[in-house]
Amino acid sequence: MIGSLSVVGVGPGDSNLITPEVSLAMVEASDFIGYGPYLNRMHIHKNKTLHASDNRKELERAELGLELAHSGKKVVIVSSGDPGVFAMASAVMEAIDNGKQEWKKVKVSVLPGITAMLAASAKLGAPLGHDFCAINLSDNLKPWEVIEKRVTHALQADFVISLYNPRSVARPNHLGKILKIVKNFSDNQRIIIFAKAISTEKEKILVNFIDDVDPSFADMSTLVIIGSSQTKAIPDTSFVYSPRSVL
Amino acid sequence: MIGSLSVVGVGPGDSNLITPEVSLAMVEASDFIGYGPYLNRMHIHKNKTLHASDNRKELERAELGLELAHSGKKVVIVSSGDPGVFAMASAVMEAIDNGKQEWKKVKVSVLPGITAMLAASAKLGAPLGHDFCAINLSDNLKPWEVIEKRVTHALQADFVISLYNPRSVARPNHLGKILKIVKNFSDNQRIIIFAKAISTEKEKILVNFIDDVDPSFADMSTLVIIGSSQTKAIPDTSFVYSPRSVL
Repeated sequence: MIGSLSVVGVGPGDSNLITPEVSLAMVEASDFIGYGPYLNRMHIHKNKTLHASDNRKELERAELGLELAHSGKKVVIVSSGDPGVFAMASAVMEAIDNGKQEWKKVKVSVLPGITAMLAASAKLGAPLGHDFCAINLSDNLKPWEVIEKRVTHALQADFVISLYNPRSVARPNHLGKILKIVKNFSDNQRIIIFAKAISTEKEKILVNFIDDVDPSFADMSTLVIIGSSQTKAIPDTSFVYSPRSVL
Repeated sequence: MIGSLSVVGVGPGDSNLITPEVSLAMVEASDFIGYGPYLNRMHIHKNKTLHASDNRKELERAELGLELAHSGKKVVIVSSGDPGVFAMASAVMEAIDNGKQEWKKVKVSVLPGITAMLAASAKLGAPLGHDFCAINLSDNLKPWEVIEKRVTHALQADFVISLYNPRSVARPNHLGKILKIVKNFSDNQRIIIFAKAISTEKEKILVNFIDDVDPSFADMSTLVIIGSSQTKAIPDTSFVYSPRSVL
């Protein structure tokens, strides 16, 4: 009998942000697939089979999940945040689209989770309170020129911009380049937020005006939110928000 | 003693999509504020005080919440989806920013939830699997010209576009106008998704190419997702996804 594959989002880290739907899927699963350090953190019951992998091998993980599910296992692929936002759902869909015809018979579900920008926004107040966009700053899978073009249009549209994967060892200067573009569209009141390891013990949040930002604070566990021209801090509080109105 | 105010996101409808953090806040609250029909649906315990209001009066609800919390109540303001995405968090921040100075002493928390586009994306596979934006199509609080400009930049950036509040009795033609703009940037393979009342008994999902779309299907409970130029349906399945790569 063919099994099933659930691609689940476990949110930013705090287990109180995991939906009951995802918790149930993890209880019922026989096999877990995910980034090694991630699986270790999850306190998965000992009777489950773990398939830990390197963080980059998303398509391989997707194919393994489909193969195991087709062979009868109840498989969970664990994504941080939401699986549909720069995480495993798209890789699983690519594997179904381009892989073995028999994989299309597997019962595949994607179970949503709290993606980093929602968790960060909640901690800060409401920086995403108006129209916004989300851009993956990694150029592993798209040309850098596309990223610069998208950021430029987003600034012209005056979106709040969430930047996922803003900086890594292999890409130390990308965020700085983007902030230079932002500067061209900004006065000195433009707010830049760095939200690191949100909802975990290592959580650290910085709110700065653009001229005071140090890109080197960011790492792969950081979400960067670039405020729109309207985004503001509330005096005498730690809150930042984007008003609902455009004047 | 001053109380507290939690602005909580209860997700798109299914109680299995409510985070444990939000469930706990609702158990501990003394007073609930929200849109009337919404509160009725929540099966709130009888020992709680309910303050039901009209859907549009967001700022009044925020002010009531702060006033009650300042007077010592443990208040929950209920938002559908995520409170930070076109919902109550920004209104509460506006009330703090512009209201009574004493409200700044209230302990205010925003608790994230599964916003409609994440729930819809999960049901469909991974249509948000690449860079995307979210635009509120209501022109109650911003000029229509701003909306058209943003959609145009989003199309030029080739974002996937989530449209919240796409159509109401007062705005029957807005979505049709937007789809005409999309058409100018599209070939006939552009995918348009209508996700109505997602995760509820009334859930209905339509996936169409742009030439086959009927805007009148949409209502205020519908999220519309406009695929990017790369978004595609997987043959022999019900899945739609946006590939991770740009070629």
